[in-house]
Amino acid sequence: MNQPINHQILLAARPQGLPKPGDWQHAEEPVGEPSHGEVLVRNTYMSVDPAMRGWMNDRPSYVPPLKLGDVMRALTVGEVVESKNPNFTAGDLVAGIGGVQEYAISDGGDLMKADRDLGPDPLWLNTLGIAGLTAYCGLMEVGQPKAGETVLVSGAAGSVGAHVGQIARIQDCRVVGVAGGPEKCHYLTDELGFDAAIDYKDEALHEGLKRACPDGIDVFFDNVGGEMLDATLAHMREFGRLVLCGAISQYNATGPLDALRNVIFAVPRRLRIQGFIYFDYRDKWPAMLKDMAAWRAAGRLTCREDIVEGGIEKFPETLLRLFSGDNLGKLMIKLA
Amino acid sequence: MNQPINHQILLAARPQGLPKPGDWQHAEEPVGEPSHGEVLVRNTYMSVDPAMRGWMNDRPSYVPPLKLGDVMRALTVGEVVESKNPNFTAGDLVAGIGGVQEYAISDGGDLMKADRDLGPDPLWLNTLGIAGLTAYCGLMEVGQPKAGETVLVSGAAGSVGAHVGQIARIQDCRVVGVAGGPEKCHYLTDELGFDAAIDYKDEALHEGLKRACPDGIDVFFDNVGGEMLDATLAHMREFGRLVLCGAISQYNATGPLDALRNVIFAVPRRLRIQGFIYFDYRDKWPAMLKDMAAWRAAGRLTCREDIVEGGIEKFPETLLRLFSGDNLGKLMIKLA
Repeated sequence: MNQPINHQILLAARPQGLPKPGDWQHAEEPVGEPSHGEVLVRNTYMSVDPAMRGWMNDRPSYVPPLKLGDVMRALTVGEVVESKNPNFTAGDLVAGIGGVQEYAISDGGDLMKADRDLGPDPLWLNTLGIAGLTAYCGLMEVGQPKAGETVLVSGAAGSVGAHVGQIARIQDCRVVGVAGGPEKCHYLTDELGFDAAIDYKDEALHEGLKRACPDGIDVFFDNVGGEMLDATLAHMREFGRLVLCGAISQYNATGPLDALRNVIFAVPRRLRIQGFIYFDYRDKWPAMLKDMAAWRAAGRLTCREDIVEGGIEKFPETLLRLFSGDNLGKLMIKLA
Repeated sequence: MNQPINHQILLAARPQGLPKPGDWQHAEEPVGEPSHGEVLVRNTYMSVDPAMRGWMNDRPSYVPPLKLGDVMRALTVGEVVESKNPNFTAGDLVAGIGGVQEYAISDGGDLMKADRDLGPDPLWLNTLGIAGLTAYCGLMEVGQPKAGETVLVSGAAGSVGAHVGQIARIQDCRVVGVAGGPEKCHYLTDELGFDAAIDYKDEALHEGLKRACPDGIDVFFDNVGGEMLDATLAHMREFGRLVLCGAISQYNATGPLDALRNVIFAVPRRLRIQGFIYFDYRDKWPAMLKDMAAWRAAGRLTCREDIVEGGIEKFPETLLRLFSGDNLGKLMIKLA
């Protein structure tokens, strides 16, 4: 009988600016055996996220930088094939950091057991995974919206933004999303229940913010950074909170980053500008997942899925779609 | 008997860049009579603060903009001359917002009774007034330093910075101050007990920060803004707090403000960047004043005073000294 093969994508080079296909290389190896305490997982879906760009840099960050030759880091969901860890059993559905490969061996530290009754595999990378949890942690723990406040979300048609807007609506906030193009803007207002949308490809940011947020903004959930962040700072209300989740507009910069000048409003308006990573709220995830599963069951929380077939080969081109603004909803690759 | 005269300084023009003497004009009027509920105060000392520059602009802020012809806004300490308000008695020492004038009539809303046993008039603009309270509110309420953390203060030889550094030392933090010139730096380390100082006139900021804060910065209390803020952002530790108190380097800009680019570190390092105004913590002032009076009595909290004689005439030139970096300690004008 042939030993099964694990196909992998390794980091081959540090990208300058936008990554190129040659920044990765394919590899294959026999599927390994878990040691004592370890679990062998067959990955079924792999999340494709803007944060992956940062993981390719050789800089200390909230996770250690990848070394050249390492399997590209990725969030995954998969099924336990073999377990030598008492917390997991063959057949368990688990979410973790399995990497861009078909099989992963883990000591269990990164794995969260996923309850299939709450939803199928892809949902654990979407509402019940990185997208929903990032939105929930950032909006509720950092942004702390109150009923009646105006919440602005950038990158609103992305998976995190879509969840932020809907959770803010559930908190009885007025919700405005910024996205590029009429299709995305219609998605926000017609399908997700946003109160208004700003199409940044069609309207100058300051004009759009004045039109859609005439009384100013209480909470800004920012996935975009740069100019978007600077423009919004000028429209914040007193005691506003700016939740910095990401800065996708800046990740591939080869020259100086966009200049922020409106931080000057932070003192007179007592603004709080705060970055966060959803990993830091792990102890609160179970309660958050319970809320989100209930909202989903009630039809109040949804997010389209953009699932790419074809396995790990598709990874480089799929990641690049995030930076061209081409995707809508939760982007992932089906592995098995 | 001659009716006493109230000499005043009025806002005469909106400054472009650095204020000029012609942006104010002198006026005099007979000292008024307090109406029912009001208090007549003879101002004894007037605080000279960087925030005054912002008060001259025609922009909504945390206080309403002054109108042309209004008495220039200023924090003052003084003695009640006549009271038709049940909360005050002739002879009371009060701190308030009496303006650049010799006498002020107040409904009492801005007035805090000052206990002469805790200290003489000037102290109520210094440790027991705007300087100490600003430092305490910003450091403790916003910065929330923990023992063993590194606290960096810019504008450290100013009255707010001096208090911040000493209060942080009382919290068992390691304290580093940034100031211009050897005299100010010696003041920080030799007189106020700072652990280290960075002379920004003598050393590039990034070099100074690397040297004096080799393990990074947990709390940055910023009075300077612009380049100082941007440089420090790159040296913050994970979960660091940046307390934005002021941005004196930017107040007189006539062109674009300094570009901030290092806000990009806020997400991976989970930084919190927060502006504040000490007025917002009024309900906590009594407890803060109690702490500060006790620290002062124990010799742990002090701040030099730079008291200008000569009355309100001295106001324009004295304000300008703040922006040339010429003063050290709490700057004020003696009025009576």
